[in-house]
Amino acid sequence: MTITITAFERSPDGGKGLARDSRVRWALEEVGQPYEVRLVSFRAMKEKAHLALHPFGQIPTYEEGDFALFETGAIVLHIAERYSGLLPDDANARARAISWMFAALNTVEPPILELVTARIFEADRPWSKDRLPLVMDRVRERLNQLSARLGDAEWLDGAFDAGDLMMASVLLRLRASGLLDEYPNLAAYVARGEARPAYQRAFAAQLAVNAR
Amino acid sequence: MTITITAFERSPDGGKGLARDSRVRWALEEVGQPYEVRLVSFRAMKEKAHLALHPFGQIPTYEEGDFALFETGAIVLHIAERYSGLLPDDANARARAISWMFAALNTVEPPILELVTARIFEADRPWSKDRLPLVMDRVRERLNQLSARLGDAEWLDGAFDAGDLMMASVLLRLRASGLLDEYPNLAAYVARGEARPAYQRAFAAQLAVNAR
Ligand SMILES: N[C@@H](CCC(=O)N[C@@H](CS)C(=O)NCC(=O)O)C(=O)O
Ligand SMILES: N[C@@H](CCC(=O)N[C@@H](CS)C(=O)NCC(=O)O)C(=O)O
Repeated sequence: MTITITAFERSPDGGKGLARDSRVRWALEEVGQPYEVRLVSFRAMKEKAHLALHPFGQIPTYEEGDFALFETGAIVLHIAERYSGLLPDDANARARAISWMFAALNTVEPPILELVTARIFEADRPWSKDRLPLVMDRVRERLNQLSARLGDAEWLDGAFDAGDLMMASVLLRLRASGLLDEYPNLAAYVARGEARPAYQRAFAAQLAVNAR
Repeated sequence: MTITITAFERSPDGGKGLARDSRVRWALEEVGQPYEVRLVSFRAMKEKAHLALHPFGQIPTYEEGDFALFETGAIVLHIAERYSGLLPDDANARARAISWMFAALNTVEPPILELVTARIFEADRPWSKDRLPLVMDRVRERLNQLSARLGDAEWLDGAFDAGDLMMASVLLRLRASGLLDEYPNLAAYVARGEARPAYQRAFAAQLAVNAR
């Protein structure tokens, strides 16, 4: 059965890895599953057909025949459970990888989303300059803890898994802010993720869409 | 094997359902599993022993013998997969419930966390009054979509499941802001969640800790 995901017809970053279909593409490349991509415009995303698939009118989505999913976390977890390559066999290690997936999405990403909002959508507000340092410090609080836990290990919990895929994907959005470079071990961790052949293929495929 | 979770020794809300151990207690009550609670102080949470269990020094955590988890999402998912009562049997419906769990934590909760920050931690900043409406509108964007999807259904996808448990838990944090009352169907949805006997038992147990 063909796997079809959705992605931006025109990505705001020009297809350089920031839109969340990257995370799904990366997961599919890690497990070696081919997939098709249906491109959606910003307008079509908010129309009935897409809303039936994604209640918040966003990308990515995942379809396989009748089977349909939304939310990157749920999609990556489904891929990781269904195909081998993204979750360890040991039950305890598997549960820890899933903890890291949720940590990436619910503990580390929220302050990063706040920073993106502050830097982009509130950039021209009168409070922008005074408020930014506060928001950056909230991100730093999480990065301090994550950096301490990672130490000089290669991945968060032994071998690369779905937790690392999600954490590296969340962290790479910080690069433009300069914050990632304050944590050399985290910057190296993200770079290791990006150096994986599966990431490279996912990145190239996303870029190709936007370079048309 | 005994299940042990961690919770605040003194919860900032006095134990009225806002701290995230509520979500785990609720899940355990829904599946009928007994559990023990280890209370931790704010200081102990940031010390070595607790950090080994939770890299971000937070509650809740979940232990069962050697098996240890952090992140509410991962804990509730583990409980839902292991015991019956929180996930449907049908694979497609099960995957949709997991999509809703991630939607609660990664799409709906981030703007709500931003609102909590704006209302509490940035309340005394010079920009507080001018900025608040913007933050509230970002929450409304998600509530509009969620309210449209729920319509007059009782739960998000047929019968009550782990997706509803998580979504109702995320939404109830909005009550103090008045925003929830702008959406009668969402307010009624949260009230239905809170009326469940399992929620009531979880709430009473959390409150009892803080009423000591
Ligand atoms: N929590 C969702 C977030 C999805 C999301 O934010 N998608 C963005 C692209 S990265 C989008 O579609 N934005 C357009 C919009 O919200 O209108 C997930 O992880 O899948
Ligand atoms: N994403 C985490 C968030 C955990 C969290 O924010 N816990 C709060 C209590 S609700 C906490 O421990 N706060 C104290 C602190 O961060 O120092 C989860 O869902 O488990």
